[in-house]
Amino acid sequence: MDKIEAETKIELISEKISAPAEAAKAKTPATPAPTPKPAVPAKTAPVAQTKPQPAAKSTAGVEEKGSDAQEIFSEFREHSVAEFFKKNRQMLGFSGKVRSLTTLVHEYVTNNLDACEEAKILPNIYVKIDNVPENDHVRLYVEDNGPGIPKPFIGKAVGQMLSGTKFHRFIQQRGQQGIGASGCTMFAQITTGKPVHIRSGTGDGQVYECDVAVNLKSNMPAVSNMVEYPGKYRGVTIVGEFAEVKYDRSEYAPLEYLKATALANPHAQITVVDPTGERIVFQRAHDEVPDRPVPAQPHPLGVTTDDLINYSHHSKERKLSSFLTSNFARISDAKVDELKTLCPTINFDKMPKELKWEEAEAIVKAFKQVKWIAPSADPLRPIGKAQIEKALKNVLEPEFIAVSERPPKVFRGGVPFMVEVGIAYKGKAGRQTKDGIGLDVKRFANRAPLLFDAGGCATTESVKTIDWNRYGLKDIDNMAVTLYLNLVSVHVPYTSAGKQAISTEEEIIEEFRYAIMEVARDLDRYLSGKIRDEQREARKKAITRYVKQLAADLPYLAGRGITAEIEKKLLYLIEHKYSKIFEKTTRLTADEEKAAKKEREEEAEE
Amino acid sequence: MDKIEAETKIELISEKISAPAEAAKAKTPATPAPTPKPAVPAKTAPVAQTKPQPAAKSTAGVEEKGSDAQEIFSEFREHSVAEFFKKNRQMLGFSGKVRSLTTLVHEYVTNNLDACEEAKILPNIYVKIDNVPENDHVRLYVEDNGPGIPKPFIGKAVGQMLSGTKFHRFIQQRGQQGIGASGCTMFAQITTGKPVHIRSGTGDGQVYECDVAVNLKSNMPAVSNMVEYPGKYRGVTIVGEFAEVKYDRSEYAPLEYLKATALANPHAQITVVDPTGERIVFQRAHDEVPDRPVPAQPHPLGVTTDDLINYSHHSKERKLSSFLTSNFARISDAKVDELKTLCPTINFDKMPKELKWEEAEAIVKAFKQVKWIAPSADPLRPIGKAQIEKALKNVLEPEFIAVSERPPKVFRGGVPFMVEVGIAYKGKAGRQTKDGIGLDVKRFANRAPLLFDAGGCATTESVKTIDWNRYGLKDIDNMAVTLYLNLVSVHVPYTSAGKQAISTEEEIIEEFRYAIMEVARDLDRYLSGKIRDEQREARKKAITRYVKQLAADLPYLAGRGITAEIEKKLLYLIEHKYSKIFEKTTRLTADEEKAAKKEREEEAEE
Repeated sequence: MDKIEAETKIELISEKISAPAEAAKAKTPATPAPTPKPAVPAKTAPVAQTKPQPAAKSTAGVEEKGSDAQEIFSEFREHSVAEFFKKNRQMLGFSGKVRSLTTLVHEYVTNNLDACEEAKILPNIYVKIDNVPENDHVRLYVEDNGPGIPKPFIGKAVGQMLSGTKFHRFIQQRGQQGIGASGCTMFAQITTGKPVHIRSGTGDGQVYECDVAVNLKSNMPAVSNMVEYPGKYRGVTIVGEFAEVKYDRSEYAPLEYLKATALANPHAQITVVDPTGERIVFQRAHDEVPDRPVPAQPHPLGVTTDDLINYSHHSKERKLSSFLTSNFARISDAKVDELKTLCPTINFDKMPKELKWEEAEAIVKAFKQVKWIAPSADPLRPIGKAQIEKALKNVLEPEFIAVSERPPKVFRGGVPFMVEVGIAYKGKAGRQTKDGIGLDVKRFANRAPLLFDAGGCATTESVKTIDWNRYGLKDIDNMAVTLYLNLVSVHVPYTSAGKQAISTEEEIIEEFRYAIMEVARDLDRYLSGKIRDEQREARKKAITRYVKQLAADLPYLAGRGITAEIEKKLLYLIEHKYSKIFEKTTRLTADEEKAAKKEREEEAEE
Repeated sequence: MDKIEAETKIELISEKISAPAEAAKAKTPATPAPTPKPAVPAKTAPVAQTKPQPAAKSTAGVEEKGSDAQEIFSEFREHSVAEFFKKNRQMLGFSGKVRSLTTLVHEYVTNNLDACEEAKILPNIYVKIDNVPENDHVRLYVEDNGPGIPKPFIGKAVGQMLSGTKFHRFIQQRGQQGIGASGCTMFAQITTGKPVHIRSGTGDGQVYECDVAVNLKSNMPAVSNMVEYPGKYRGVTIVGEFAEVKYDRSEYAPLEYLKATALANPHAQITVVDPTGERIVFQRAHDEVPDRPVPAQPHPLGVTTDDLINYSHHSKERKLSSFLTSNFARISDAKVDELKTLCPTINFDKMPKELKWEEAEAIVKAFKQVKWIAPSADPLRPIGKAQIEKALKNVLEPEFIAVSERPPKVFRGGVPFMVEVGIAYKGKAGRQTKDGIGLDVKRFANRAPLLFDAGGCATTESVKTIDWNRYGLKDIDNMAVTLYLNLVSVHVPYTSAGKQAISTEEEIIEEFRYAIMEVARDLDRYLSGKIRDEQREARKKAITRYVKQLAADLPYLAGRGITAEIEKKLLYLIEHKYSKIFEKTTRLTADEEKAAKKEREEEAEE
């Protein structure tokens, strides 16, 4: 904290505004008589020593039965974040037996994928799920070929919450909180009383194995049974035994989760061995590791005053101006000059460490008035249009696909993000409902599938805002359509530590909305083209029938002519004068569509 | 951790199951040839020193571009819970300007109500919201007449996350995490750079005022500018300045929140002064403080093995048997005998500290086989049928009200809970939609309104499961109906620290479901009764018209008789033979309804 403004002896509002008459009707605005002016002026400190009265005389009789402050605060305690999540394990996604198992798989596999991506390794991930029949436990084994965890970090990486390599970096990854793996360890402990077992090798010829638990009181790792042996294994293997989980093959189960993971990570090879011994392989479809995520600089739009203060006070730059150009995306010397004009009272040569809150606030305000180049897509690693099309084609074999990729935007904190939206129609698209088939929405954040908590998610909210009527898709809820939504961001604003829903930030909803509208328009165009095709086909059939009949009848009616010749002539006439009627249209450009529409209208007028 | 089972040198699955052929089609179950038996046997430690191979040879060429483990883990950091919530402020409910302001009011007011309840004080709460025009900030003032915070705890109570009087207690309160108020302090800091200002008096003649901030790096409180002066004020006043918030009067704004709070807390008097200076008073409707919440003992159903281990190892009892009877609800000596029979190998005379995980697991299993008395309602403080009816009547002035209160149940952890559900029809019930009026669902948890995140909430999920057709309420989405749902629990399983949605625990959904079905049945009965009444009324009119006409015509047709007398006789006949037709029915008992139905069927047959 840099600037704390004292503001002592505030006035009691309860004394300023007279106690409301007991007879007054509930919720009616009271008489505006004792109009309350701002009771707490900003920086003055009016002495309010006007004999404060006991606040609630009328209740004095009742009070004696209750506890007083001393009694109540004798219960005051501090708690560790591990205790908090133990008590609120549902916040980590541990609620419901099937969901809990999926959460475990989710946490381990996203860590695997992140680690492989950062080390530029094509991921090979093995997941094995066994039932332990004697005690209803489930044993989960997850092995990767990632970079491994160096010995000194093994304990903290899986045995201490809020620690890790990702939280503080402005970098696009699936994990970002440093809670996931330790949360799984905690879940093993509280359901089976057992630590998790870790094997780690960094490829230097030594392999480490040990048991790790979280000390829930202190949120510190407890490492035991460490063994060290020579070996070439590189990667991390985690084996844990869990209860209150259940393996099945439902929509929210690990297999569906991994299928969705494969859909968004075609470069990963994922092998699952399920409790029956069946082996399911999600093959690598694409032999290239996505580029390593690049740490981003924040974009001035969306930087908060607090961010600016934090960055500047930790800066080693000598001048505010060079601090700005070197710490933020898109701030050039020319832009600094613009900022100077907008903030004439601020000295841009001062040390960034000396930036005051009010000054920072003024600069942030000025940021919003300057015209900026949009944030660079550099730190963002979208799946890409081609990859999404390929994945949707492989998995859904649809009749029609469209993919929209929007340019990067920022949301609060200057966080760059972008959205990718795909639509697939027919084939295996859509989801089974009790009434048949319906719209399926597949949600992803940085390629990690979001299976749960669709309710309050920005993706779902943006889908809700679409007026499907406008796209001739009024009946979308009963159509074989899959929407594929991926948020790509250096920080995903999850609604909870369970990382299953994206907070409804306006900017994110807007972008999803536009992208969905784009693919909806594409589908509309395809469908109306298809209807026209069908209509043309029907018309062609009708006319051909008519030609045949006419050619047969004419000689008889006219008394002369040869059927075959007349048929030929008629077909020639139709083909040359009305050829457009038979044209096969698949997808029209907007202009063609306009022309076609005009044509149809003209036809109708005729 | 009591029992850590070493399990070293696990086998690599990647070596056991041959690498899948590159040509194999994605997602097809691979040949079951190398059937994977459980690869990680439970307690044996097979030496897997069989020369581990580097896991992913094919990728060796690619790896060099990436970071290795040492590089990656040079970024390893530990973070405080305050840093976590600063970065993920949306998890505390700080997303969106209006919602953020409502979250602030929510956190402070729930603390006020909890404190007053525990101290048995009738709450007088003052909320004042001012715009600070020069910098777009909002100044929030919240004053209560509660027990106050003793001086040594002021800093921690509002300046340290995960500390407080509520988290560890098995007691029904609105707050339960020890995050709320400190989260507000953090939000003031990161949006305006200012600490919050606190005044506290415990009624001992001294009043304290100071500024409090959270040191975000360490999650420790920073108290400054402490002043102490004599005064009789008892309670807590908090004044904070916040940015990125906005005052309006929309559906999700503070005023609606406080209105809903008043609905569920008729014993509280809440005065709001809004930025225009208007004063709105939610009058106390009920002059009695709810009983103090009573700490509960966990019910054996739903106790987990981990709970049992924790409780037993902290117990001072000498014997397992007396530990069980004295620490859990509903465990009598007779029940212990039953448990002994079910767990013959466990020595119930041993020290509870010596209980082993397997034994605890066996006891938990036995718990589920014993027949228990339902948990006591003692620790639960429902609003109560009468209070809910009164509140709904006051606020909605509906045509019909029904309230259902279900007996207590438990969910995981042996947490006792119960649900209260009210339904109101017509009057001001229902919510305005763009198409007219529709079903309104008002959600509460321990009397605190839940305005946000309805999507994934147990309340909403339970409403979704209802087949409204069965209750003749097919068109519920377009009816003027308000559903009032309150979860009463010693621990509310919120989906996130923002405390706006209840996790979809099966037991909770079931209870809400049953309660909603009950009130739906009541409404159905009322509505069909109403229709019958209308039909009867119409029939009566028709018959009376007929009687008049008949009485007038008969003398003419028959040539004798007097109209007035005939009319009188006819009416007498109808009244004595067919009186039931005219009976006014409002609500029938199930039996009456059955009889009425039979009667109607007989009528139809006639």
